[in-house]
Amino acid sequence: MDTTLEAAAPLTGSELARLDAYWRAANYLTVGQIYLMTNPLLREPLRREHIKPRLLGHWGTSPGLNLLYAHLNRAIGMRDLNAILVTGPGHGGPAIVANTWLEGTYSELYPSVSRDEAGMARLFRQFSFPGGIPSHVAAEVPGSIHEGGELGYSLMHAYGAAFDNPDLLVACVIGDGEAETGPLQGSWLSNVFNNPARDGAVLPILHLNGYKIANPAVLDRIPREDLLAILRGYGYRPYVVEGDQAEAVHQGLAAAFDRALDDIAAIQRHARTTGEAVRPRWPVIVMRTPKGWTGPKRVDGRQVEGTFHAHQVPLDGVRRNDEHLRQLEQWLRSYRPEELFDATGAPVEEIAALAPRGDRRMSANPHANGGTVLRDLVLPDYRTYGVEVTRPGDPRSEATRMLGGWLRDVIRANPDRFRLFGPDEVASNRLDPVFEATDRRFLAERRENDEHLGVDGQIVEVLSEHLCEGWLEGYLLTGRHGIFTSYEAFIHVVDSMVNQHAKWLKVTRGIPWRRPIASLNYLLSSHVWRQDHNGFSHQDPGFIDHVVNKRAEVVRVYLPPDTNTLLSTMDHCLRSRHYINVVIAGKQPAPSWLTMDEAILHCRRGLGIWEWASTDEGAAPDVVLACAGNVPTMETLAAADLLHRHLPGLKVRVVNVVDLMRLQPDSEHPHGLLDTQFDTVFTTDRPVIFAFHGYPSLIHRLTYRRTNHKNIHVRGYKEEGTTTTPFDMVMLNDLDRYHLVIDVIDRVPALRTRAAHLRQAMVDARQRCRDHTRRYGEDAPEITDWRWDPESVTNP
Amino acid sequence: MDTTLEAAAPLTGSELARLDAYWRAANYLTVGQIYLMTNPLLREPLRREHIKPRLLGHWGTSPGLNLLYAHLNRAIGMRDLNAILVTGPGHGGPAIVANTWLEGTYSELYPSVSRDEAGMARLFRQFSFPGGIPSHVAAEVPGSIHEGGELGYSLMHAYGAAFDNPDLLVACVIGDGEAETGPLQGSWLSNVFNNPARDGAVLPILHLNGYKIANPAVLDRIPREDLLAILRGYGYRPYVVEGDQAEAVHQGLAAAFDRALDDIAAIQRHARTTGEAVRPRWPVIVMRTPKGWTGPKRVDGRQVEGTFHAHQVPLDGVRRNDEHLRQLEQWLRSYRPEELFDATGAPVEEIAALAPRGDRRMSANPHANGGTVLRDLVLPDYRTYGVEVTRPGDPRSEATRMLGGWLRDVIRANPDRFRLFGPDEVASNRLDPVFEATDRRFLAERRENDEHLGVDGQIVEVLSEHLCEGWLEGYLLTGRHGIFTSYEAFIHVVDSMVNQHAKWLKVTRGIPWRRPIASLNYLLSSHVWRQDHNGFSHQDPGFIDHVVNKRAEVVRVYLPPDTNTLLSTMDHCLRSRHYINVVIAGKQPAPSWLTMDEAILHCRRGLGIWEWASTDEGAAPDVVLACAGNVPTMETLAAADLLHRHLPGLKVRVVNVVDLMRLQPDSEHPHGLLDTQFDTVFTTDRPVIFAFHGYPSLIHRLTYRRTNHKNIHVRGYKEEGTTTTPFDMVMLNDLDRYHLVIDVIDRVPALRTRAAHLRQAMVDARQRCRDHTRRYGEDAPEITDWRWDPESVTNP
Repeated sequence: MDTTLEAAAPLTGSELARLDAYWRAANYLTVGQIYLMTNPLLREPLRREHIKPRLLGHWGTSPGLNLLYAHLNRAIGMRDLNAILVTGPGHGGPAIVANTWLEGTYSELYPSVSRDEAGMARLFRQFSFPGGIPSHVAAEVPGSIHEGGELGYSLMHAYGAAFDNPDLLVACVIGDGEAETGPLQGSWLSNVFNNPARDGAVLPILHLNGYKIANPAVLDRIPREDLLAILRGYGYRPYVVEGDQAEAVHQGLAAAFDRALDDIAAIQRHARTTGEAVRPRWPVIVMRTPKGWTGPKRVDGRQVEGTFHAHQVPLDGVRRNDEHLRQLEQWLRSYRPEELFDATGAPVEEIAALAPRGDRRMSANPHANGGTVLRDLVLPDYRTYGVEVTRPGDPRSEATRMLGGWLRDVIRANPDRFRLFGPDEVASNRLDPVFEATDRRFLAERRENDEHLGVDGQIVEVLSEHLCEGWLEGYLLTGRHGIFTSYEAFIHVVDSMVNQHAKWLKVTRGIPWRRPIASLNYLLSSHVWRQDHNGFSHQDPGFIDHVVNKRAEVVRVYLPPDTNTLLSTMDHCLRSRHYINVVIAGKQPAPSWLTMDEAILHCRRGLGIWEWASTDEGAAPDVVLACAGNVPTMETLAAADLLHRHLPGLKVRVVNVVDLMRLQPDSEHPHGLLDTQFDTVFTTDRPVIFAFHGYPSLIHRLTYRRTNHKNIHVRGYKEEGTTTTPFDMVMLNDLDRYHLVIDVIDRVPALRTRAAHLRQAMVDARQRCRDHTRRYGEDAPEITDWRWDPESVTNP
Repeated sequence: MDTTLEAAAPLTGSELARLDAYWRAANYLTVGQIYLMTNPLLREPLRREHIKPRLLGHWGTSPGLNLLYAHLNRAIGMRDLNAILVTGPGHGGPAIVANTWLEGTYSELYPSVSRDEAGMARLFRQFSFPGGIPSHVAAEVPGSIHEGGELGYSLMHAYGAAFDNPDLLVACVIGDGEAETGPLQGSWLSNVFNNPARDGAVLPILHLNGYKIANPAVLDRIPREDLLAILRGYGYRPYVVEGDQAEAVHQGLAAAFDRALDDIAAIQRHARTTGEAVRPRWPVIVMRTPKGWTGPKRVDGRQVEGTFHAHQVPLDGVRRNDEHLRQLEQWLRSYRPEELFDATGAPVEEIAALAPRGDRRMSANPHANGGTVLRDLVLPDYRTYGVEVTRPGDPRSEATRMLGGWLRDVIRANPDRFRLFGPDEVASNRLDPVFEATDRRFLAERRENDEHLGVDGQIVEVLSEHLCEGWLEGYLLTGRHGIFTSYEAFIHVVDSMVNQHAKWLKVTRGIPWRRPIASLNYLLSSHVWRQDHNGFSHQDPGFIDHVVNKRAEVVRVYLPPDTNTLLSTMDHCLRSRHYINVVIAGKQPAPSWLTMDEAILHCRRGLGIWEWASTDEGAAPDVVLACAGNVPTMETLAAADLLHRHLPGLKVRVVNVVDLMRLQPDSEHPHGLLDTQFDTVFTTDRPVIFAFHGYPSLIHRLTYRRTNHKNIHVRGYKEEGTTTTPFDMVMLNDLDRYHLVIDVIDRVPALRTRAAHLRQAMVDARQRCRDHTRRYGEDAPEITDWRWDPESVTNP
């Protein structure tokens, strides 16, 4: 069987000794971080006052991580590999930090944590300590592109990093806890989308240590052959290393890495010399070692090593329990620190020499600090891809399809650094012009009736929002660019992943050596208002609310109302850095309101008065009709049209909002309008009828500090949905043109009697539309062309 | 190999003919729903005006669903099975609706859609029609517990339905699109938690039809042996049926069902007679048939059947294209409706007879309308499980551990209808008393060092929030009760699943024959303020914001401040029906504020003035200190204490909020306070310093319509986090007692000069605490016991 490494013993005695010394050093430094305030080298007997008052951290996974790090270093040295490490069990922070200190990178980036006794003392003290560093493999850790707090995403991050990085090896440790999650299990098939000729290699390392916090790990408790069958079924060749005897495990692991890396080299050589792009059988390493290996075997009469009791801090009473203190000292000394560190406290030469040099260190690899290798996109001039607007509303166009034309040329101009990810919705979201330039990458079997499927495509589609998100994050974090296009409702599938990425962006803004990366761009089409085929389950605009909770400095939300504004917005997003940009756009044929020049100006302002649709002629309006989102904009303009025609004296101001963050005060968001600007646009005392794409509460939330807030009346999605016609959908939620007119009449005191007739006409029109729709199954002719009539307004 | 069904031909000629006729009838009714407005039985030649104006729906998956439904009906009849069907490809709505009409259930529940020609016409017309029914297998469809709009959750719903339902067979069709999602792949191992002696059986049916919207299905494009290896590795025995010749597929599928159901019977018999509870190798059926099978082969010169072009509506131009119209008529007539329906339009006897009788019909099985089989929980009197509060603040107790004592007895009293689901956090969330009564259910290998692991446990833990959520939903939807306990931050993993369940609850409130089910209860401990081991990645209180977007009638959010209020709250939640209850509680030792009687009263009111901590003595206060959440409550009481001691003349009112929805106007939420009540508590003009557990904006959002809103000043989580001490965390977010005092001084005009000294003292105290923490790694002694001093206040 390909998985046994029959008594392979590739290491000479001295190699084994060196690896083991390195491993012991990393373990020593790990335990030191968890426990010690001072006395880092145990130059004096351990006393209570050397111990931290709060013992925090995760020991259980750490010895395994240290072992893998040591062996990866050996392999990098032997083969001059360009490698990074994704640490799925990211709560093993002290382990990875220990290795980066041993390699010297840590001290280069944080000079006060020098590679000597004083630095070691700081290294220990700062860990999980107030004002120090977090307990996880966080953004502060050199070489990390992945904080492991929320489990499930290591392997997808690894694949995202490997895409279009042909020389890169991404080693990815997967904990057996994480391996239970759906997203991780869904990640194994990422190999269907990885082209050995054009992409880098991912080497997954499934680390079985048998336990989670208090439970066994499921994958360690099913028959081992079943586990291997799963991995083989997912297309891998597993190499298994199992044991609790250090020497044998060292030999087995070295053999496993040798075989796995030989496999990868052979796979890539074959693909790159023959040009044959088939899905190979990539290697995977399965390593079974005891949880908390080399830690205390038993504590207080209870087994700890090899059980879940080793998960966090195995000896938790050290400050008040002499026996614990003694056990801790014995544990620390079992690594023989005196052999590992020299008189100054630096790692001895034998250990330091195991680490690769310079950028070859995983902790210093530029790909793990993506901003340093980021190259700007070559962006064709989007202004030439727009629609020629002859008058507001003409012609109708499909915004995303027009955008697709530009994206096609973005793809062409950036074959090595730009990708579009989506769950089978690139075509459905009408971005299909991109297929003139590229295919969907797919390495599994291709058949005659497939369309736009190829081994080199820059589009990656799989029915998993998790994978799309995780791949794109990995791709961005290693210095490339991309867009995730999805149905609006289902982007909630990755809410928690967005949280974690937002946290990463927030934290890295404060880490000087981390360079800005390209923004994470969402293009949400097939939105709440146009789910003609699908109905209620597909109707949810709450993703905006979700991202607005994130730190203001990382979040941007755009609702371009038509084609030209969408183009301008996406160009802006693709040029931006270190943000999360959410763009919501229509895909159906719809009016085009602004010429390209107007669109550019409007997008630059973020919001503005549409004078051509307004009748206030610069004076104080009687009412403000505000709108955000393509469908609400259309309804608002139709309402304005009705008002213009039926209440010609009424001074209506139409305001459109593209950049939602403009509504917030400037104290809350960098895009926020000054209060004076806001008051100028929205007035301080006139009724504002705000037609919004999403849940109405968001507009209140963004504007509640504004002078005129009490007069802002918002219509939006109020969770009324089903499979029905587009106009019926807006009627169900009182967002339709007729209802907006009713709202104006109800809010402008002067109109209550004067416009009673019109109000009734609106009520009747709604009923007529509803009846027509119920009867004929389609929107009433009076609104089916969704047309605002520009003739009804005298342009100022 | 166990997977081949070598030329098995279990069906006699007449059986085969009957199955095929039933299948044709269901297919005919499916196509009719997608296309026809009138002329349902094609009594006259098809004309354009018989066709719906908007052609919406999903044909591609439907013939496969119809085939499976027919064969399941055969099996139910042969074996008198108690079976329900979970339809993963839930967009195949017309197929399932067709079957429920054939079975008669549809007409029983919707009498106007009778089983005759007029009813058939209504059946066709209403589908995906305004005012009609949705396009998916929605809550309106009899027999459904699963709307398939968002893909990934069918198999976990199926397992949840099977748990503690020993006689139930849950057949679960999984589409090959859905099968790509992480959550679905993570669901296969659900069999580790299913006890053949005590739980029902799940029969997964993986339906490969090869394509999604525009892409091939990955699992159909990896080598078939790899797919089977995955399924075997996950512990299943696959039976494969593949073909595009109806007769052979009928025979193969009948054989597959026979074999699979024999396996299940043998597994259950063995487990139930021997008492041997091991994880058996459950069967799974893999069915490969063409997408859009029996539909148009080619349209406009392009192949449709067997390709992704069959996904939605294969002939989309019927109303304007005579050739399409001709093809449609040919297609419909190919099913030979004249043989399938009698003169009245009812299914002929041969077809009707295939359907099971009464409750045996999958569409009428009471388990699929969980409220009908729901039995109340036997709830021990929670009042005897609380803590004896001698004076406010004493004693300290761990709220979740005390709750655990009550839950232990809830578990004991309800062995057949109550479960606790969690991702390995029941112990970590300190609910451990439950282990005195039960184990964690686990059917894979158990080892010596495992704790509280058993084959019959009522606790189910797996490191997958998706599974916990999906299992619990399935369990609730089939009429049982449960709680999902999770870290607060990671409950976002299931945001989108919560959306779908909330939609289900909302819609079913309007369906008279759907009976209310038990509420979906979340117990979120290990919350944002106490992530001592984990830091920033574990700090996110935004789930509340997420659920508040759902319809008010289904959402409840509770923040009990101490042990007794937690007990009272959970008792209420477990008695409630058809809600989503979010409960956020502390697990650390913390002050107990209210006696049980006070707690009950306080929880009943939802919010209230804590007079014993207030100094306004019923008069108008100078300031209101409001709080929600256990940590903010402690800081607020400590701030009140400081104010009482240092500004004895100041009239402070302390208000605690347990039921967050009380803050909303009564027009927005059924729990909302009347404005007059709100004004009485929060005043109309005094400053309110509101210390909140989550993001501050939520309090503004809930209260923005209140009279005094402009004076409400909220402190909460502002996305500042890391691994640090508990008090440092509240300081980082300006939620600490000292900052609350500063806020009071800054907001009460009279104090600005009078309390300048105190203000500076507070600034100094914060600095002192910060310095101490940075230096010693622990909270300063002055706050470590987190004690509010009741002696400082003269009780009124």
